[in-house]
Amino acid sequence: MHLPSDNSPLFLLEELAEQLQVSLKGDGKIPIRGIGTLEDAGPEDLSFVTSKRYASFIAQSRAAALLVPPEFGHLDRPLLISRQPYLSLARAAQLFYRSPSAPPGVHPSSVVDPSATLGSGVSVGPLAHVGSGCSVGDGTVIHGGVYIGGNVTIGADCLIHPNVTILDGCRLGDRVIVHSGTVIGSDGFGFAQDDQGQHVKIPQVGIVQIDDDVEIGAGCAIDRATFGRTWIQRGTKIDNLVQIAHNVTVGEHSIVVAQVGISGSTRIGRHVILAGQVGVVGHLQIGDRARIGAQSGVNRSVKEGEDVLGTPALPHKEYLRCAAAFRHLPRFRDELRDLQARLRQLEDILTKE
Amino acid sequence: MHLPSDNSPLFLLEELAEQLQVSLKGDGKIPIRGIGTLEDAGPEDLSFVTSKRYASFIAQSRAAALLVPPEFGHLDRPLLISRQPYLSLARAAQLFYRSPSAPPGVHPSSVVDPSATLGSGVSVGPLAHVGSGCSVGDGTVIHGGVYIGGNVTIGADCLIHPNVTILDGCRLGDRVIVHSGTVIGSDGFGFAQDDQGQHVKIPQVGIVQIDDDVEIGAGCAIDRATFGRTWIQRGTKIDNLVQIAHNVTVGEHSIVVAQVGISGSTRIGRHVILAGQVGVVGHLQIGDRARIGAQSGVNRSVKEGEDVLGTPALPHKEYLRCAAAFRHLPRFRDELRDLQARLRQLEDILTKE
Amino acid sequence: MHLPSDNSPLFLLEELAEQLQVSLKGDGKIPIRGIGTLEDAGPEDLSFVTSKRYASFIAQSRAAALLVPPEFGHLDRPLLISRQPYLSLARAAQLFYRSPSAPPGVHPSSVVDPSATLGSGVSVGPLAHVGSGCSVGDGTVIHGGVYIGGNVTIGADCLIHPNVTILDGCRLGDRVIVHSGTVIGSDGFGFAQDDQGQHVKIPQVGIVQIDDDVEIGAGCAIDRATFGRTWIQRGTKIDNLVQIAHNVTVGEHSIVVAQVGISGSTRIGRHVILAGQVGVVGHLQIGDRARIGAQSGVNRSVKEGEDVLGTPALPHKEYLRCAAAFRHLPRFRDELRDLQARLRQLEDILTKE
Repeated sequence: MHLPSDNSPLFLLEELAEQLQVSLKGDGKIPIRGIGTLEDAGPEDLSFVTSKRYASFIAQSRAAALLVPPEFGHLDRPLLISRQPYLSLARAAQLFYRSPSAPPGVHPSSVVDPSATLGSGVSVGPLAHVGSGCSVGDGTVIHGGVYIGGNVTIGADCLIHPNVTILDGCRLGDRVIVHSGTVIGSDGFGFAQDDQGQHVKIPQVGIVQIDDDVEIGAGCAIDRATFGRTWIQRGTKIDNLVQIAHNVTVGEHSIVVAQVGISGSTRIGRHVILAGQVGVVGHLQIGDRARIGAQSGVNRSVKEGEDVLGTPALPHKEYLRCAAAFRHLPRFRDELRDLQARLRQLEDILTKE
Repeated sequence: MHLPSDNSPLFLLEELAEQLQVSLKGDGKIPIRGIGTLEDAGPEDLSFVTSKRYASFIAQSRAAALLVPPEFGHLDRPLLISRQPYLSLARAAQLFYRSPSAPPGVHPSSVVDPSATLGSGVSVGPLAHVGSGCSVGDGTVIHGGVYIGGNVTIGADCLIHPNVTILDGCRLGDRVIVHSGTVIGSDGFGFAQDDQGQHVKIPQVGIVQIDDDVEIGAGCAIDRATFGRTWIQRGTKIDNLVQIAHNVTVGEHSIVVAQVGISGSTRIGRHVILAGQVGVVGHLQIGDRARIGAQSGVNRSVKEGEDVLGTPALPHKEYLRCAAAFRHLPRFRDELRDLQARLRQLEDILTKE
Repeated sequence: MHLPSDNSPLFLLEELAEQLQVSLKGDGKIPIRGIGTLEDAGPEDLSFVTSKRYASFIAQSRAAALLVPPEFGHLDRPLLISRQPYLSLARAAQLFYRSPSAPPGVHPSSVVDPSATLGSGVSVGPLAHVGSGCSVGDGTVIHGGVYIGGNVTIGADCLIHPNVTILDGCRLGDRVIVHSGTVIGSDGFGFAQDDQGQHVKIPQVGIVQIDDDVEIGAGCAIDRATFGRTWIQRGTKIDNLVQIAHNVTVGEHSIVVAQVGISGSTRIGRHVILAGQVGVVGHLQIGDRARIGAQSGVNRSVKEGEDVLGTPALPHKEYLRCAAAFRHLPRFRDELRDLQARLRQLEDILTKE
């Protein structure tokens, strides 16, 4: 499987080199019609080596040319040499790949409230719903089965995948992508206990605000604020099945990997990375550029640039040392027993004297 | 952002004091049109202080009046003083907030089987489905995109949010709230292995029963029983992305926080709290009023009132002591080494003698 | 609750014995109309004992006959005796239970692209969508609210539950079951960082391939490959709320329990068991017949047949020993302190001499 050659644009290798601003080695007139992995690329495809892990596949690859880091610049084949091969790959793939086009206009099976405002070129797929008072910006695609509640604002060039739910009053910026099954604007989990231990619902009357260039994966739940807003800031990317509670803020250009849960009112900084299955307690501050390792349980605020891991989360290297020692716990116990026995012997000797 | 003033009812501060059964301090004739946080509340809004955490914001707040605990009773502004300010806030917000009204009747784009029985005032939103033999109680709102299978019973005054799925034969009580994306009645995960290690499906022919006043968050999966019922009892509140396996029972007035997973046939008691990302093994009993800390892995039954934490779960305080010691494991190891060296020296001395 | 007697077929006990290939004890002419638990089965139902756990309920059961393992062969009631009672139960339930029938044909509220090919007997429920170029095999049931994108291939006798999303280009084999809310073919989570720390999307142009006899639970997300395919192989069963990242392969007849997350490009072998809430790092190999215990964090490849547990995952028995020792850490610390004090005393004595 690789990028389809049929409808894809064709580039000469030298054109790619120029557009990607990378070095060319070899024949620049080679035509390139797609991109594929080393195993799958055909004789008109560009392939790529972004990690030494895959170097052993280079020799057998039928690819027309390779996108490589400088350390592979010695290869005797047509090359695009990039100091950031992964970034260049992203840009190359964007040149070749066009999202399947969505026809502008509203599918007749959909229900769009007459009071909703749709920009030019907006596509609303089959069996979708856009509620009263909504505003959808130019070029945005709302796929089939999407439910958009009342008074939702969506910017331009957004891509709302099938069966997404966006509830009343939420606001999305431009170029936001939301994947299928995700819910934006469900009620925050807020209850007060009465004297009988019954849970009295606190109405959740805030919204979710999602800024420009955010991407949200499949099956996520992003709760509306109790009051105010739950806020995902510009450029942040969220993976699948992530839970974001009411009144959380996630700063710009952060990464939230799959199955993370962030509890209420916590503030995540900019350029933060939360690895998979992390849990963060409520009302914390996670500083800019902090990194939280996979499955960590974060029960205290984390400083700018800190790198933590474990439950409860410790500085990354400290956790690794502790985890290494954990493995030797049974031996420590035996050594303790041995020391106790030997010490008792010495004590006996010295006492007898 | 705060509660909208336009359509909200207006209360005098003294009327609120009476309805909430809290003490009034200052001018009772002040008109209150909404509720907001200390930062956001305007001059006709009530604000609130439910925790000392936010006390520093009081001075700058433009709020007309504050709902506070007795310890803030000295403040020189109009006050509602409550011994349970969080509970009073919940009740105050319920006075001001009305769920966006849903028009009674069935949206013409929806598909309701003629054999289904809808109570008075029931609203079925756009592009929803109600299957054959269903019964829906008075005043219940079924939002757009909801799919309800055959022979489902739903009580009165329920709120089924967009894109929920409720499958054949399941039963919901009165005033149940289900948030978007949640699935009720998916098959339990039951397979028997044959001699080749292939998995033979055990048909899951039970149901899910959800009692009065339960609220279920977004993106949850609640499996039907193999035989019998998976049962969520009265007043229990479940957060987002929670997994409840076949034949589980969750007792009355319990709290299940986001991303918890409860394995098959486990019985959770009344007033239990399962914090975020907890996993509970199957066929266990979790006693009434037990509390399971975040991310815990529970592999044994938990007694009434027990408070446990960790994987495997230990009594809460014991876990905290162990976790604190875990952090010193590398030092323990060094100290062990040191003791061993010193003991060997002493042994050498005594042996030489 | 037990299997409904009304529409179910009737079997004589001796017929069941023959069809299940198990031993009969007692009157083979007893009519059996359903299956129920020991508590719920009525006088025309078969019940079962698959574990000693439930033996105490046998005496009171009103069941007409019991399916039991040989160790219960002494019971003085009509019995079906099976060496694999759980497997026999699965097969017996399959004899009695018929999936609620779905009427062949396309519900008039659904949208099926004219270029899609539907096999004979295909059922497309209400408010579903089947995109252009799709192919759906004979006897497959697509329930209401399902969204199927363009160029999707689905085999014969599949069961796609309500509100499932299957996106462009994905391929399903025969007899695949997908539960509600699940998303197949969402974009993989792939971004390259530019010099400003902004995340540049890598288009995800691969597919998801799901082979014959796979079952996927509710609320799962299975991402399409960056290039190539994410691949779930024959006979594998996946529980609810599972995250499978781009380019993952899961081998044949494996079990993936609820809330597991598998990171990109990891290869899971055949007959592997991943227990609930496990997280697996990317680019690993999990060997055939490996078993990963609940909540484990797997950060290294696992060999064929290995049984691991914990975060980071250790050999199962080793982890249990370490976890047992963890609980005694505070005591170890105290014993270390005690040893240090006593050793210092001895050192003092010997130094003074």
